[in-house]
Amino acid sequence: MLIAILLYDRFTALDAVGPYEILARLPGAEVVFAAAQRGPVRTDMGSLALTADRLLSEVTTPDILLVPGGPGTAELLADRAVLDWIHTAARASTWTTSVCSGSLLLAAAGLLDGRRATSHWIALDHLERLGAIPSSERVVFDGKYATAAGVSAGIDLALHLAGRIAGPKVAQAIQLAVEYDPQPPYAAGSISTAPAELITSLRASGLVVQHQDA
Amino acid sequence: MLIAILLYDRFTALDAVGPYEILARLPGAEVVFAAAQRGPVRTDMGSLALTADRLLSEVTTPDILLVPGGPGTAELLADRAVLDWIHTAARASTWTTSVCSGSLLLAAAGLLDGRRATSHWIALDHLERLGAIPSSERVVFDGKYATAAGVSAGIDLALHLAGRIAGPKVAQAIQLAVEYDPQPPYAAGSISTAPAELITSLRASGLVVQHQDA
Repeated sequence: MLIAILLYDRFTALDAVGPYEILARLPGAEVVFAAAQRGPVRTDMGSLALTADRLLSEVTTPDILLVPGGPGTAELLADRAVLDWIHTAARASTWTTSVCSGSLLLAAAGLLDGRRATSHWIALDHLERLGAIPSSERVVFDGKYATAAGVSAGIDLALHLAGRIAGPKVAQAIQLAVEYDPQPPYAAGSISTAPAELITSLRASGLVVQHQDA
Repeated sequence: MLIAILLYDRFTALDAVGPYEILARLPGAEVVFAAAQRGPVRTDMGSLALTADRLLSEVTTPDILLVPGGPGTAELLADRAVLDWIHTAARASTWTTSVCSGSLLLAAAGLLDGRRATSHWIALDHLERLGAIPSSERVVFDGKYATAAGVSAGIDLALHLAGRIAGPKVAQAIQLAVEYDPQPPYAAGSISTAPAELITSLRASGLVVQHQDA
């Protein structure tokens, strides 16, 4: 089972690594990180690089495609070669998945027309303009397309997917292996629980490296 | 505020990247990934490498030290140079933190004698043998030492720490930025919630790349 994770300049690290930590533990999983160029690819905050071991051209028929989000999606929305690769890889895949603003790339590749999908809360309007039916759920399945909300939601998506692929017992074993028993100190992780003034100020702040609307 | 994250062969990716995603968003944060050698460092499952931009010798006085866990800790428990670096960096730091079996390295460096600390559930016995007072809590603070349970617990640790460093409003803003509103599909993430037979079988399986007791 080949799992391809797309890397690109200014992706968000946890978008890729959260699901990786779950999916790579599936029986028979082979994970490859792929990018337009081989070698280190810098995250949005610049202080971390993940290695792309494969070129996109070397991974065109994955069983699972994972597209992480991040501020770098803004440039990729106009990158025909990457969007074409996403389209090709998704068509070949059994499951096509995204985290955060990665769903904008799936939509721009023409894969989410009329489909229910989610994204980072700050990008849901943009997702709608690209033809998807936006949902504020944390994980959305529509056919073989599975999209997650912002950044950390990729962990939940991956556990859902692990259950569908290998059954609940295996998914639960993976959950216990990574001790995913979350206990956030605050109830501020979604726009339905966070204080209103926090949402307003965050839209204007640098804490969300905001996706630039096209 | 210099945040040093230790990398070493066969660390667990999410142990490092979960807290990175939170702490790097703190105002004034500068994160550096450091290892004994510069360049790509492979994770426990082999399919991912993170780049160490700095040598350990270049980062001896961080404000925050983060030591991730992973099966590679087994070798490091006998690596005097790395343990000495951890000891030196920890002494200089305002906060010294670990995720998963990273706490074994803190303990082996002589930093947790008689202190309360946690680790991956599978490593708590070992932690006790190294002189710490083991706790099954998800995040444990004892003085300037903060330790997290397995893998995903580093996200919770980092949010707690963000609150102590920058106040709850900043921590909540970061939580909303990364949309940390966890909704795991199963209640199997800790040994207090997972089915007993799952815990037994997991101890024997390859899903937890088990830390080898010294």
